[in-house]
Amino acid sequence: KINGDRLWDSLMEMAKIGPGVAGGNNRQTLTDADAEGRALFQSWCESAGCTMGLDTMGNMFARREGTDPDALPVYMGSHLDTQPTGGKYDGVLGVLGGLEVVRTLNDLGIKTKHPIVVTNWTNEEGTRFAPAMLASGVFAGKHTQDWAYAREDADGKTFGDELKRIGWIGDEEVGARKMHAMFELHIEQGPILEAESKDIGVVTHGQGLWWLQCTVTGKDAHTGSTPMNMRVNAGLGMARMTEAAHQIAMAHQPHAVGAVGHCDVYPNSRNVIPGKVVFTVDFRSPDLEKLTSMRAQYEVKAKEIADELGLGLEIEPVGHFDPVAFDEGCVSAVRSAAERLGYSHMDIVSGAGHDACWINDLAPTAMIMCPCVDGLSHNEAEDISKDWAAAGTDVMLHAVLETAEI
Amino acid sequence: KINGDRLWDSLMEMAKIGPGVAGGNNRQTLTDADAEGRALFQSWCESAGCTMGLDTMGNMFARREGTDPDALPVYMGSHLDTQPTGGKYDGVLGVLGGLEVVRTLNDLGIKTKHPIVVTNWTNEEGTRFAPAMLASGVFAGKHTQDWAYAREDADGKTFGDELKRIGWIGDEEVGARKMHAMFELHIEQGPILEAESKDIGVVTHGQGLWWLQCTVTGKDAHTGSTPMNMRVNAGLGMARMTEAAHQIAMAHQPHAVGAVGHCDVYPNSRNVIPGKVVFTVDFRSPDLEKLTSMRAQYEVKAKEIADELGLGLEIEPVGHFDPVAFDEGCVSAVRSAAERLGYSHMDIVSGAGHDACWINDLAPTAMIMCPCVDGLSHNEAEDISKDWAAAGTDVMLHAVLETAEI
Ligand SMILES: NC(=O)NCCC(=O)O
Ligand SMILES: NC(=O)NCCC(=O)O
Repeated sequence: KINGDRLWDSLMEMAKIGPGVAGGNNRQTLTDADAEGRALFQSWCESAGCTMGLDTMGNMFARREGTDPDALPVYMGSHLDTQPTGGKYDGVLGVLGGLEVVRTLNDLGIKTKHPIVVTNWTNEEGTRFAPAMLASGVFAGKHTQDWAYAREDADGKTFGDELKRIGWIGDEEVGARKMHAMFELHIEQGPILEAESKDIGVVTHGQGLWWLQCTVTGKDAHTGSTPMNMRVNAGLGMARMTEAAHQIAMAHQPHAVGAVGHCDVYPNSRNVIPGKVVFTVDFRSPDLEKLTSMRAQYEVKAKEIADELGLGLEIEPVGHFDPVAFDEGCVSAVRSAAERLGYSHMDIVSGAGHDACWINDLAPTAMIMCPCVDGLSHNEAEDISKDWAAAGTDVMLHAVLETAEI
Repeated sequence: KINGDRLWDSLMEMAKIGPGVAGGNNRQTLTDADAEGRALFQSWCESAGCTMGLDTMGNMFARREGTDPDALPVYMGSHLDTQPTGGKYDGVLGVLGGLEVVRTLNDLGIKTKHPIVVTNWTNEEGTRFAPAMLASGVFAGKHTQDWAYAREDADGKTFGDELKRIGWIGDEEVGARKMHAMFELHIEQGPILEAESKDIGVVTHGQGLWWLQCTVTGKDAHTGSTPMNMRVNAGLGMARMTEAAHQIAMAHQPHAVGAVGHCDVYPNSRNVIPGKVVFTVDFRSPDLEKLTSMRAQYEVKAKEIADELGLGLEIEPVGHFDPVAFDEGCVSAVRSAAERLGYSHMDIVSGAGHDACWINDLAPTAMIMCPCVDGLSHNEAEDISKDWAAAGTDVMLHAVLETAEI
């Protein structure tokens, strides 16, 4: 069994870096706080006897040697970056849970045949630089590195420049590593495990996603002196398209979601009819047909709305992954570890995207989920119990031991 | 007749300060560009033999002496501040048109009985600091100066601090001046004069306004893993309330408008259901009953929408004025000047708010409007012709001469 207190202390220590405004964290990718969190993680890994690799996307790989020089490593990991108003556990638990597994193996003097690597993937959240899971996506060959380097934040700073600026750009070629298997521990970020009183979610599938960035163009004009019938109101278009995204998701129930989280209005003045609005629709489903249908219906409906209001409309996909089925071998290693350890468990579909979804294309992969209070995540009030964290990490330890062989 | 070329040159010279991104201006109130524009205006006024007064709200008063030491001055003026993506004429024409009247009187060696004062009112636009017409409102006793000083921009900077910072805070007590009359020349900012092929709008009335700042609070949550029925989506609430404001204005046709120009979504991340949205509804009508009814209907409807979605809702009025009827004597001075000069003209209602609307409470006031291309304003592409500007200024010259007496 892992040391739940030590794991918890490390989680609390990391949470001091990039504090939020309401008890959570704002440690967005490639900020100074991200650099500070990386340095702390590296120092912990080195104290645990690992050597640190760093690739050209800033992905970190802490390696504990195995006994067979020819065996491919078993990976664990997730991400240390957070949302602007994020929680202390989303991503962090998967990284520090991996470190706790290494520390436990050290305590117990256990040597594995396969090396073990704990990873911190860069820019999982996708808030500052879309899309989410950017660096694991480049690792998996989904995007080119040049394209990733050119991603811009809201201030026009590029991913490449910011990675250089914080000093965490490595020499190792991204994606050059081969993996025996990968396990990602993560909080559920949804309400199911808590509602069903289960300690462990055995993640069999992940939802697919479309992020559709919509640029609606109207005509800046005076809110007072422009007659209603002369307006080309991009804000009204945005409002109708936001409602349409919601209605389309509702019409695809169950197992489909849709919302607009990002929305910038220009020139954003009380007495100017908006001449431009840029916003992003987020559609997800574990069912590829539903996912595809939501996007298609939205594109038709948004065009209708734009035409009716005389608005220009451009829709650019800025994030996409298909629904994922995780590796049956790895999934059953997770399920049987939970079973052996006596934790209550159930099969579950991940509602969020995760680095594991990309890595699953390269190597046998699975995820372990633990409950979170009220299903709340991407909120500073995100919360889990020490026992939940420990149970998830125990299951990861045992799944990894089975896969890495003693 | 005034010198149309000189007026145009001054307009073009002023437009170089605080250039926009598309040929217009971004010379928002109390910015460094505003300070620069004020200095240029002051230097022109001094060259024209005027003395400059400056009050504690930063309002500027350039005075040309009259022949009767006991006569109250006749005022002309408007504002030099612009929208973030504003035009070159909105406000500026009224200030520099006033200066052109003074220059013309100088050229012709005309002395008036009443002194003449050309005014630049601070923060007419209301974008950076709500409400609009802030400093003329304090002058007219509609707001206290302390309240005005405490208005905050989006970065939390206060009006008072910024006025001090740019160095344009005067000693003169705001509102201490008495006026014989006031004339404001302004572009129409709407399509009517151009459509009717009229050179001059004789402004008889101004629309009233409500700015209702709405704060909608939901719950930050993950867009992927939060089931549809567990969402408390402040963005969806904003979308529905934006549509409601539009529908309510449409139901009050004719002579009523409504829109949302300002909208900030928090935390504004693609994969976070918005936990908060702050936006402002702008309702206007020349008919007090319609104006009051739109506000009342909106408040009921917005509450219904919030309740249905489980959202918190606060509505704070951040701008208000009642419909205005301008002074009959001043209005007929404008009408008869247009008539005498042979300019085509029509009576018109101002769709926008203007400093003249507040000053009308203190002294006999009227406005002169000139057409603008396509009725477009609060847009960098705002445009007028040199002839239109000259005609409006001619009419102001003659109305002022009649009122200030030779
Ligand atoms: N786990 C997580 O919140 N990842 C961010 C990508 C997504 O929005 O699903
Ligand atoms: N003239 C003008 O645009 N003033 C700003 C106040 C308003 O929104 O009417």
